[in-house]
Amino acid sequence: MKSTPLNYPKMKKILTCIISLLLLNHVTAQQATPISASMNKVKLDFILDAGGRPEYKVDYAEKPLINTSRMGIKLANDISLDSNFMVINTERKSVDEQWKPVWGEVSTIRNHYEQVTIHLKQKNNLGRLMDIVFRVFEDGVGFRYEFPIQPNLKYFIVSDEITEFALTGDHKTFWIPGDYDTNEYPYSTTKISEIDNRSMVNASDDIAVKVCPDRYAVQTPLMMKTADGLYINIHEAALVNYSAMQLHVDTKTFKLKASLVPDAIGNMAYMRAACHTPWRTIIVSNKAGEILTSKIILNLNEPSKIENTSWIKPMKFVGVWWEMQTGKSTWNYSNNADIVGADGLLIPNHTHGANTANVERYIDFAAKNGIKGVLVEGWNYGWEEWFGNWKENVFSFVTPYPDFDVAAIAQYAKDKGVVMIMHNETSGSATDYERQMDTAFRFMNKYGYTSVKTGYVGKIIPRGEHHDGAWMVNHYVRAAQKAAEYHIMIDEHEPVRPTGLQRTYPNWMACEAGRGNEYNAFGHGDKPEHETIMPFTRFIGGPMDFTPGILKVKDYTVLPNKQVHTTLVKQLALYVVLYSPIQMAADLPENYEKYADAFQFIKDVGVDWDDTKIIQAEPGEYITTARKEKGTENWFVGAVTNQDSRDEIAPLDFLNKGQKYIATIYADGLDADWDKNPESYKITTYLVDANTKLKLKLAPGGGAAISIKPVSGDTKGIEKYK
Amino acid sequence: MKSTPLNYPKMKKILTCIISLLLLNHVTAQQATPISASMNKVKLDFILDAGGRPEYKVDYAEKPLINTSRMGIKLANDISLDSNFMVINTERKSVDEQWKPVWGEVSTIRNHYEQVTIHLKQKNNLGRLMDIVFRVFEDGVGFRYEFPIQPNLKYFIVSDEITEFALTGDHKTFWIPGDYDTNEYPYSTTKISEIDNRSMVNASDDIAVKVCPDRYAVQTPLMMKTADGLYINIHEAALVNYSAMQLHVDTKTFKLKASLVPDAIGNMAYMRAACHTPWRTIIVSNKAGEILTSKIILNLNEPSKIENTSWIKPMKFVGVWWEMQTGKSTWNYSNNADIVGADGLLIPNHTHGANTANVERYIDFAAKNGIKGVLVEGWNYGWEEWFGNWKENVFSFVTPYPDFDVAAIAQYAKDKGVVMIMHNETSGSATDYERQMDTAFRFMNKYGYTSVKTGYVGKIIPRGEHHDGAWMVNHYVRAAQKAAEYHIMIDEHEPVRPTGLQRTYPNWMACEAGRGNEYNAFGHGDKPEHETIMPFTRFIGGPMDFTPGILKVKDYTVLPNKQVHTTLVKQLALYVVLYSPIQMAADLPENYEKYADAFQFIKDVGVDWDDTKIIQAEPGEYITTARKEKGTENWFVGAVTNQDSRDEIAPLDFLNKGQKYIATIYADGLDADWDKNPESYKITTYLVDANTKLKLKLAPGGGAAISIKPVSGDTKGIEKYK
Repeated sequence: MKSTPLNYPKMKKILTCIISLLLLNHVTAQQATPISASMNKVKLDFILDAGGRPEYKVDYAEKPLINTSRMGIKLANDISLDSNFMVINTERKSVDEQWKPVWGEVSTIRNHYEQVTIHLKQKNNLGRLMDIVFRVFEDGVGFRYEFPIQPNLKYFIVSDEITEFALTGDHKTFWIPGDYDTNEYPYSTTKISEIDNRSMVNASDDIAVKVCPDRYAVQTPLMMKTADGLYINIHEAALVNYSAMQLHVDTKTFKLKASLVPDAIGNMAYMRAACHTPWRTIIVSNKAGEILTSKIILNLNEPSKIENTSWIKPMKFVGVWWEMQTGKSTWNYSNNADIVGADGLLIPNHTHGANTANVERYIDFAAKNGIKGVLVEGWNYGWEEWFGNWKENVFSFVTPYPDFDVAAIAQYAKDKGVVMIMHNETSGSATDYERQMDTAFRFMNKYGYTSVKTGYVGKIIPRGEHHDGAWMVNHYVRAAQKAAEYHIMIDEHEPVRPTGLQRTYPNWMACEAGRGNEYNAFGHGDKPEHETIMPFTRFIGGPMDFTPGILKVKDYTVLPNKQVHTTLVKQLALYVVLYSPIQMAADLPENYEKYADAFQFIKDVGVDWDDTKIIQAEPGEYITTARKEKGTENWFVGAVTNQDSRDEIAPLDFLNKGQKYIATIYADGLDADWDKNPESYKITTYLVDANTKLKLKLAPGGGAAISIKPVSGDTKGIEKYK
Repeated sequence: MKSTPLNYPKMKKILTCIISLLLLNHVTAQQATPISASMNKVKLDFILDAGGRPEYKVDYAEKPLINTSRMGIKLANDISLDSNFMVINTERKSVDEQWKPVWGEVSTIRNHYEQVTIHLKQKNNLGRLMDIVFRVFEDGVGFRYEFPIQPNLKYFIVSDEITEFALTGDHKTFWIPGDYDTNEYPYSTTKISEIDNRSMVNASDDIAVKVCPDRYAVQTPLMMKTADGLYINIHEAALVNYSAMQLHVDTKTFKLKASLVPDAIGNMAYMRAACHTPWRTIIVSNKAGEILTSKIILNLNEPSKIENTSWIKPMKFVGVWWEMQTGKSTWNYSNNADIVGADGLLIPNHTHGANTANVERYIDFAAKNGIKGVLVEGWNYGWEEWFGNWKENVFSFVTPYPDFDVAAIAQYAKDKGVVMIMHNETSGSATDYERQMDTAFRFMNKYGYTSVKTGYVGKIIPRGEHHDGAWMVNHYVRAAQKAAEYHIMIDEHEPVRPTGLQRTYPNWMACEAGRGNEYNAFGHGDKPEHETIMPFTRFIGGPMDFTPGILKVKDYTVLPNKQVHTTLVKQLALYVVLYSPIQMAADLPENYEKYADAFQFIKDVGVDWDDTKIIQAEPGEYITTARKEKGTENWFVGAVTNQDSRDEIAPLDFLNKGQKYIATIYADGLDADWDKNPESYKITTYLVDANTKLKLKLAPGGGAAISIKPVSGDTKGIEKYK
């Protein structure tokens, strides 16, 4: 990751491309018949229409999945790359390979696709070149536009992308508004014809920064279900140097069109040939669970650019955080940044959470319970007026408040075998963060912090830019790259939603970019169905720092009318259902001590996995997921339901045949209910094996969590499950 | 300069201010009569009109200089701070003090003014507070707006500034267009009523980036002369956290109105009370020379924020630069960034100037001639496509081209007693420079570079921002601050024009922000009058890296139709007339070797001064300046004229009485002419003293340069000047 001249490392590759192009010198006539590629049930057709307009369609199981849809982009200065093309050549490639992620839901990933590259040239004297590359997988299609080195297209500005997804019917859709600055809306479930984000945008007064000019725009990953029971997910992969793709919905024709997030002056991307767009992705299956296990997004990303990944370690963590969310303490040290005491320092408000004694209490708790990390928010100067003012220089990332003894805390944590997690909130001032980044990361190295949680609450600086615009897209990548230089893992809050870049930068453990548990504190809360939709939408792009594990579901210290909209047990189940290689145990130590037997599941559950099985799933209704902890024979199962109670059979046929296991079942109490009685639970232990079929009873807004470990000692007194 | 929590160091001061305000608790009635302040001939009146609108006027020698002019600012969200005010109190202060600049035109500066602060409050229920602070000097007025801490104004966005300068007549004016991105236009000399920048903007195809939406906008420092022979200069001091003030001209009423440079979304500044605007300045005298020696701008700036300044050292330098300007060699190493050779590296074009052998030639030349510094442009990767593409990642600031051996060159320079000057061209990508800045400065420290020349050719990134907007204003300051952290002197090219901040950051040696000698190479050239206007305009704000000293005035290596629009001798005179603590000897070593006797003046001339005398001056016509070299008894005189030849008497009455000196006079040849015969010159040596009156003959576009040193040895054969 050391500094090298920009672009130059890629030159050999580019030279190879030029040579390849020279070999393809026989120009073919315009194709009347489609150019096709298939894998199993998925069939892709590319067509140039009479106007030389590139179009594609996708069939699944011999039925139309995506009707004929337009392709191409438009550039500044009235340059159109969406028509008047001819096909000059076609290349094909078959790939079937396996690779191992540094961490993940499975230990080995198969990358199996048919690729077809269509070399297009415009039929005018400029003869501009554009390639469209399709990859057809067993469970969907990815495609992108590529621009080779050519005489009449070098630097260019993207003004619009023409890409369409022409749907075949008025599908059921799980959507959030296509906002330029936030992904933190609750999900709406409607028909396509009913999509209109206006009322949701207006109602969402719990979101700090919202910019959503198109009432018919929705965010991706967009999850849909057809009347025929097909599940479709549209998203993008490897979003770099381009703005996020949202979808503008034609509610009459069911056509979705790419809608890019503009920069401060209305442009979408600044490119330089040779270059390419991100991949546009369509995942499809007749089984909802296969949407959850699809690896198309990861497979379309580049392999890790970090050679030595030994320092990247999944973990669980606690933190000085929920106590601020619930009003027990504050991020800010003082109540007025304009007044100082006789010592020249801010006057303390004595409600500041990130004080040394309190932090050491969390370290003690983590050490005692085998939780590896401790996050502390509010440790540094700036929180007195941290967001909402579009201020550029808000925080120092190396200056602790007077009551936070960074050196003593670092030593205390080290002595206890705990690692500290840095917090760098930027208030959206990305320019200021980039200025301080090197200094901030050196500070982390000095004090032994191995990971950082970043944040972007507020309007973005450079002013006029958006969280999901191309400049910020590159900023998030730069932050991950810079963190990697310093061997720091990163967890970005309020970024653009992920597109699988964690494969390329495996120190990029998670991000937020979605509506997390925190909205149950300061906001209108998450509906009980929320966590049954999130894995089909937000999590398709990558892990989320959702911050599960709030066991004191109601009656927070200060906020009497707020509560988590799940049962206690569903909070446990989320550690399995919501995938992340870093998982917070988000509640207060005192609440975990109160529910120490339930907390045992959080202590036990894995954070990195050899295998993942979706036992059953239906978006908006239920998900039951089983995962095998990496390098062990331990399995963990999480089941969640929406507002409806549910009886479920969970066969454990993924267990090794003939092996006996002990299952600890954390179940909703019989009288449990997310609203009326959320903290009712029951823990039972049984002997199980691959033939066991667990009968789970999920309360309204409830769930179940099960840890399954091979029998290793005395099983006396443990019943066989029946 | 170490990192401290932002804003907090100022707190004690703020607290003091609050206490001061509390003491001023007796609200006075609205003033019907003006609030006045005077010093010698300068009288300032402040008035609130019937609508509570703040206004001011200035008299000079009991005649109106500035007629009644409106004041105030407007904020976003329709907040007006320009009317409906009452005066709640007035404070007065007299200051007469002296201070010593780290370097400068004089060794001691007197700061002598009467200050009046008018505390205003709006007559509505919000009662917003605004203070106007006037400082009245012997040679002009400075004023600014201040915003104390108050309940109803904390964070605010400036949308317009109302400040007017109502002139008393249709003055003769020396102006350049009020462009958002460049100060590199040639000057126009017209009446105010004739100002219209359109044709100049359209004709200036030699300027890379121009944005000038208002045809009646002009840049400051704006120099004027009244029909009565008064000289007036309007500018600003201490421009930080605010955009540059240009002036919109009403050609009918002769009113100038402040016109601020907008940011990417049309705002002018983002402020947080307590805060203030920059100072608006009016310098006035009936002697043109006193405009040149005014210290108002410096006095209105804060004292040095750098405690230890021992590492800041004025110097002369040569550089690998003019040879690229004149086409002899290239900045870029290769002619095509898309092709690499078998070694994976760029294919060299063999015209690259910054190669080790050539650089060592410049080092040899500098060492031999006692020139301290060597600048090298084009040493680092990126120049193949360096500007014009709005590309963000253009340059690596730590990666030399393959033929530039940075370590060997560093050692070679060190062995020869020469210091290398770093070059960091950004192509306008300020965001990328801020990211790399720490790394770049560490690289300079590692290789012994003690100063850096920065550059901003091209459209600014953050895209939508302008060179003269508030974001970039702060960027230039940040670059100077960051340089100071690393004990690096800085010379910024293509920044906003200076406003005296070199007092506060004395490592900020010079900047460009004006039309330098280089336009005689790649552009339409500088008119012969150019250097007689520049000291009255651009240089009022601070030193410029003009790059004088081109002795081979015509017939550059490659550009046959270009030439410098001065005589050779005038190039010498510029080292005295154009003040800078860093001065380039800009021509090629071979040209200096050709004119070794004339080059002697450049070798001898000082770069830091104890004293400065303007012998005579008239903007657009002539300037003769004498300066005493710091810590010596050596004087240097420079005289320049416009296109007209001129006979001039230069009395040397500034010399010590009774002391004998040897004067070496570099004069235009009798047949010299900037166009027809520019390189004709004659060097003579005489004994002179304080009674000597030199008779100088300046050719059209010519000048004279004189070095005067006390007699220290044998004077046999040296005639007494008659």
